[in-house]
Amino acid sequence: MLRNKLSSINLCNIAVHDKFWGKYTGLVTKEIIPYQWKALNDEVLDAEPSHCISNFEIAAGLKEGSFQGWVFQDTDLAKWLEAVAFSLSYEPNPELEKRADEAIELIGKAQEENGYLNTHFSILYPGQQFCNLKEGHELYTSGHMIEAAVAYYKVTGKDKFLQIMKKNADLICEVFNTEKYKNAIPGHEEIELALVKLYEVTGEQKYMDMAKAFVDRRGMRPNYLSEENTKPWYIDVWHDPNPYVEEYGQSHIPVREQDKAEGHAVRAVYLYSAMADIAYQYKDDELFQACERLYENIINKRMYITGGIGSSGMMERFTTDYDLPNDSNYSESCASIGLAMFCRRMTQITGDASYLDTMELALVNTVLAGIAMDGKSFFYVNPLEVWPDNCMEATSRAHVKATRQKWFGCACCPPNIARTLASLGEYICFVDEDGFYLNLHTGASFECDTESGRLAVEVDTEFPWKGHTIIRIKSDNTYGKARIRIPSYANNLCVNFNGEKLEPVIKKGYLVIKGKFKDDVIDITFDMPAQIVYANPNVRADIGKAAVVKGPIVYCLEEIDNGSNLAGVYIDVTEALEEEYCPDVLGGVTVIKAKGKRVETTSWNDGKLYAPRPVKFEKTNLTFVPYCNWGNRGYGEMSVWVKSL
Amino acid sequence: MLRNKLSSINLCNIAVHDKFWGKYTGLVTKEIIPYQWKALNDEVLDAEPSHCISNFEIAAGLKEGSFQGWVFQDTDLAKWLEAVAFSLSYEPNPELEKRADEAIELIGKAQEENGYLNTHFSILYPGQQFCNLKEGHELYTSGHMIEAAVAYYKVTGKDKFLQIMKKNADLICEVFNTEKYKNAIPGHEEIELALVKLYEVTGEQKYMDMAKAFVDRRGMRPNYLSEENTKPWYIDVWHDPNPYVEEYGQSHIPVREQDKAEGHAVRAVYLYSAMADIAYQYKDDELFQACERLYENIINKRMYITGGIGSSGMMERFTTDYDLPNDSNYSESCASIGLAMFCRRMTQITGDASYLDTMELALVNTVLAGIAMDGKSFFYVNPLEVWPDNCMEATSRAHVKATRQKWFGCACCPPNIARTLASLGEYICFVDEDGFYLNLHTGASFECDTESGRLAVEVDTEFPWKGHTIIRIKSDNTYGKARIRIPSYANNLCVNFNGEKLEPVIKKGYLVIKGKFKDDVIDITFDMPAQIVYANPNVRADIGKAAVVKGPIVYCLEEIDNGSNLAGVYIDVTEALEEEYCPDVLGGVTVIKAKGKRVETTSWNDGKLYAPRPVKFEKTNLTFVPYCNWGNRGYGEMSVWVKSL
Repeated sequence: MLRNKLSSINLCNIAVHDKFWGKYTGLVTKEIIPYQWKALNDEVLDAEPSHCISNFEIAAGLKEGSFQGWVFQDTDLAKWLEAVAFSLSYEPNPELEKRADEAIELIGKAQEENGYLNTHFSILYPGQQFCNLKEGHELYTSGHMIEAAVAYYKVTGKDKFLQIMKKNADLICEVFNTEKYKNAIPGHEEIELALVKLYEVTGEQKYMDMAKAFVDRRGMRPNYLSEENTKPWYIDVWHDPNPYVEEYGQSHIPVREQDKAEGHAVRAVYLYSAMADIAYQYKDDELFQACERLYENIINKRMYITGGIGSSGMMERFTTDYDLPNDSNYSESCASIGLAMFCRRMTQITGDASYLDTMELALVNTVLAGIAMDGKSFFYVNPLEVWPDNCMEATSRAHVKATRQKWFGCACCPPNIARTLASLGEYICFVDEDGFYLNLHTGASFECDTESGRLAVEVDTEFPWKGHTIIRIKSDNTYGKARIRIPSYANNLCVNFNGEKLEPVIKKGYLVIKGKFKDDVIDITFDMPAQIVYANPNVRADIGKAAVVKGPIVYCLEEIDNGSNLAGVYIDVTEALEEEYCPDVLGGVTVIKAKGKRVETTSWNDGKLYAPRPVKFEKTNLTFVPYCNWGNRGYGEMSVWVKSL
Repeated sequence: MLRNKLSSINLCNIAVHDKFWGKYTGLVTKEIIPYQWKALNDEVLDAEPSHCISNFEIAAGLKEGSFQGWVFQDTDLAKWLEAVAFSLSYEPNPELEKRADEAIELIGKAQEENGYLNTHFSILYPGQQFCNLKEGHELYTSGHMIEAAVAYYKVTGKDKFLQIMKKNADLICEVFNTEKYKNAIPGHEEIELALVKLYEVTGEQKYMDMAKAFVDRRGMRPNYLSEENTKPWYIDVWHDPNPYVEEYGQSHIPVREQDKAEGHAVRAVYLYSAMADIAYQYKDDELFQACERLYENIINKRMYITGGIGSSGMMERFTTDYDLPNDSNYSESCASIGLAMFCRRMTQITGDASYLDTMELALVNTVLAGIAMDGKSFFYVNPLEVWPDNCMEATSRAHVKATRQKWFGCACCPPNIARTLASLGEYICFVDEDGFYLNLHTGASFECDTESGRLAVEVDTEFPWKGHTIIRIKSDNTYGKARIRIPSYANNLCVNFNGEKLEPVIKKGYLVIKGKFKDDVIDITFDMPAQIVYANPNVRADIGKAAVVKGPIVYCLEEIDNGSNLAGVYIDVTEALEEEYCPDVLGGVTVIKAKGKRVETTSWNDGKLYAPRPVKFEKTNLTFVPYCNWGNRGYGEMSVWVKSL
């Protein structure tokens, strides 16, 4: 681990103006935030109602009625407020800020005297607090509220929300250090990483210690969650007849002993993010090594090529090594967000950019796939292969949707994507006392203060369609270091500094250029042609198949370009791939063409299901488009992995 | 349809002594019936308890306690009694008969005054009868009880059980013809085909009419099942928050308009069996045409090569045309039993043997796969591809088991297999006024009475390992017809009659030999070599794959013979298959050898999950064994469909 953690840049100091990301980040203030506000207020026609604001109004005593929605419904507002906070950092909007202030006012009114904040329990079980940690999601909900409050404070400087959540966190620190709750842990992790953030803005050690205690207790005996239903104060929330599955909640063994990513994927990566934070803060090598093992297990045995995680539709969870079915997986958008959060922290505490390859994969493929290009509909589940006909309600494929949905009754993903896009700057750039780290080749302008002075940086790039990035640094002859991530997929790197070729110095995945900056230009080019990729042959689902990738961008076949029955399409890997930038396709993307063959469905014309005669094939041309953009041109089949000749 | 339906042979007139079937039928009295009696009495160690007998004792007032188990738990005893009845037809057993008589006594005591019989509702909701047809399974349970009573009466001549069930059926005929229940239908079909059987032994028309009414009402508006939860008498049994799915219960459109097999597979084929019965009885061509359409839909679009049906694990149901995933399917043993029942009836009413190809497929592959070769453990779900590592509890694959289970809390399949094996004679042979129809090439002795006299028939066969069957007919110079099914997969048929070659006359799939029989020998040979079969290319799951079959026997690869990672094994279809009868393998089977290649897992030795280099292959020999016998030599991978070169 590093002596000094790399800091996320303050979002007020960065503006993103990237062509690739701009298709989505540009939607945050224009479409997503207003749309999601409507959703929270149940004003989106034909969409599942949220009830979220209504629940707060009832809890605040402003309205009659009862709680509706999931136990964690409050988090939709939390994530919306966090997205609003981030958006205000780069696009001030007094009207929106006023709406947010009003929502915060409402949250304050819904808070109970002792600091407790959760509309589900306040309305349905008044006075009964923390009586079902396994299912109740109170600590999870507080975690999201704290994250939002910290973001709102950091961007606006207003501390009302922060004070509300400090009071709530104080209650949590008090309650969960009592004898009664000395073994207690949250059912769904999230509070841990939020308390770390709260510590970072307030400097109050008790929040960090509480986060550490929750992490330390996890997997220890007695297991509070397994035994919770025997406690006298237990409330049965979900009437689930099944016993608690300890792996599901990562509480099967102590976290320091864990070496496989188990259970509910979102819970897992939120936990690992907090573990990384705490390992760094307490210089806890054992905990850090657990983080490394879990990271390795994910990327080498349990992750889709798209950066998706969670192979099982049922329980939204990890299963076993190399079990990566493409058509029935969950790969929740939130899980890839959590994976990106974990990877970001691992780089922040080690200075090693290799984790960012995974972060980038998750962000540019699965997270972006989670949202439509108009910002108005969402995937919760991100399969790598879809045949719309069999995505039927009340079947094993019911969780897989062939089109993005307007909203969900359980709507964790849409606002999670919104807050992630709105805080993209935190992923693009880190800073330390010497200068900056450019993590993603993304068009952006930012400023950072070194020990010697300020650097103003302007990044322009043709990424991801071309490996060409220009970084202009203006400063007052300030000494500093520019560290620019050179991804693992970059070949033939060529660096020019003020027009002169430079022998690149790469440290831990970053190109390092140091010196006194005045008005300097770093021009970086590298090759990242489209290529055919194969899976480890232990991945049974991908044997005999190939995928097409270009840099971090994973491609797919869609029915609109390639006809139906994509399972019957083969790519000829001996033929060259052709790249073509198409400005009119999907807002401008590089399309990849390949040769191959496909089954002649018509050759099997007697209607029989099985017969002793081989299927015939015909030659075909294949067109691949970025997976992140799939499903934006109507309804049809999609496949990432393609049979190969 | 025929003028006179082909009758099932009376089981008292047939004895099965077949080498292939004998591995299983021989277990019925020796192992399965005693074992299942223990299971019903909760005496099997390490198995889920049944509670079945206990529930009857409580309902009968002989014991304190409450109902435990599924709502349809009574049917386990019904199917056990039916299996016992059938077994007594060929293996008298006074002790077993006494035990059955005592169980029947117990059933009588559990019956209510008005004829009502269902321990679940009698114990938990006394006085509340037929208050949840959607989930309550009362009519389903009565159906199985009636089938058992009919069997017990036909074999033993004792009518106590029959009288109990007549009283129950009388109540049903009364209740379901009242104004209150005029639109009512069973949630799970079964009563319909049972009432037909009751009519057949009693001659009472009202039973047949009630069966017809249930069939006629299905899918009509108003849909009783969709609206049932609004009735004042409704009891919520399962607290299922989801609305009733009409397709799930085949009640989405009138049965005469149905042309796709929809919903829960067992329900569907039980309904279609009754539809065939009723179509024949009432000479209802419209209903018969619906049967034909549904049959065609199943065999041409919705059936596994193993005769399994039901593609979705969730809700054990049909999904959509050509959706036949191999590793996540349900293909319940009971569904294939129901399919065999439906096919048998279709042949009985049409005289057309083509349906029997499907019947045979379901019986010799999926039904036999459902039971271990020691008769003591069972599959409920019959996948065509298993990787034990990912058959994990609390995941999407939780329904798939890599080893047969000792018993199930929901135990419909084990006793259903037992009663099917015990009544195999009814599938082997039909009779009419002219003689017999030999449906399955199976070693058996039977007698049948024609209008002119009695024929005594002895069948010996090398089937299914060789297409060679000898039929000896002894009679008193009686005129008759021998009709012997020539399966669709039989090639180069050669028939000898008393040593002389005969030009075969085939009618509707049966070889017909007529004349006066005295002491005659029919010697039939045909070729049915092992062959490679492919699936219709609309079956996305099987594209690029091949299966090995020999006659009706579907083969599979098992890990014990072929190593692990069967998804990485390819069969070379240009090389000849080699057949070898191995007396020591699986009790004597023909094993099939093939050539192919397999992935070299070790060639991918850097541990990465994805990389731009193809996987290497090595040559391999493949050994296929009958699918019905898989999982009898320990725990491991299995696959029916194999990638093909």
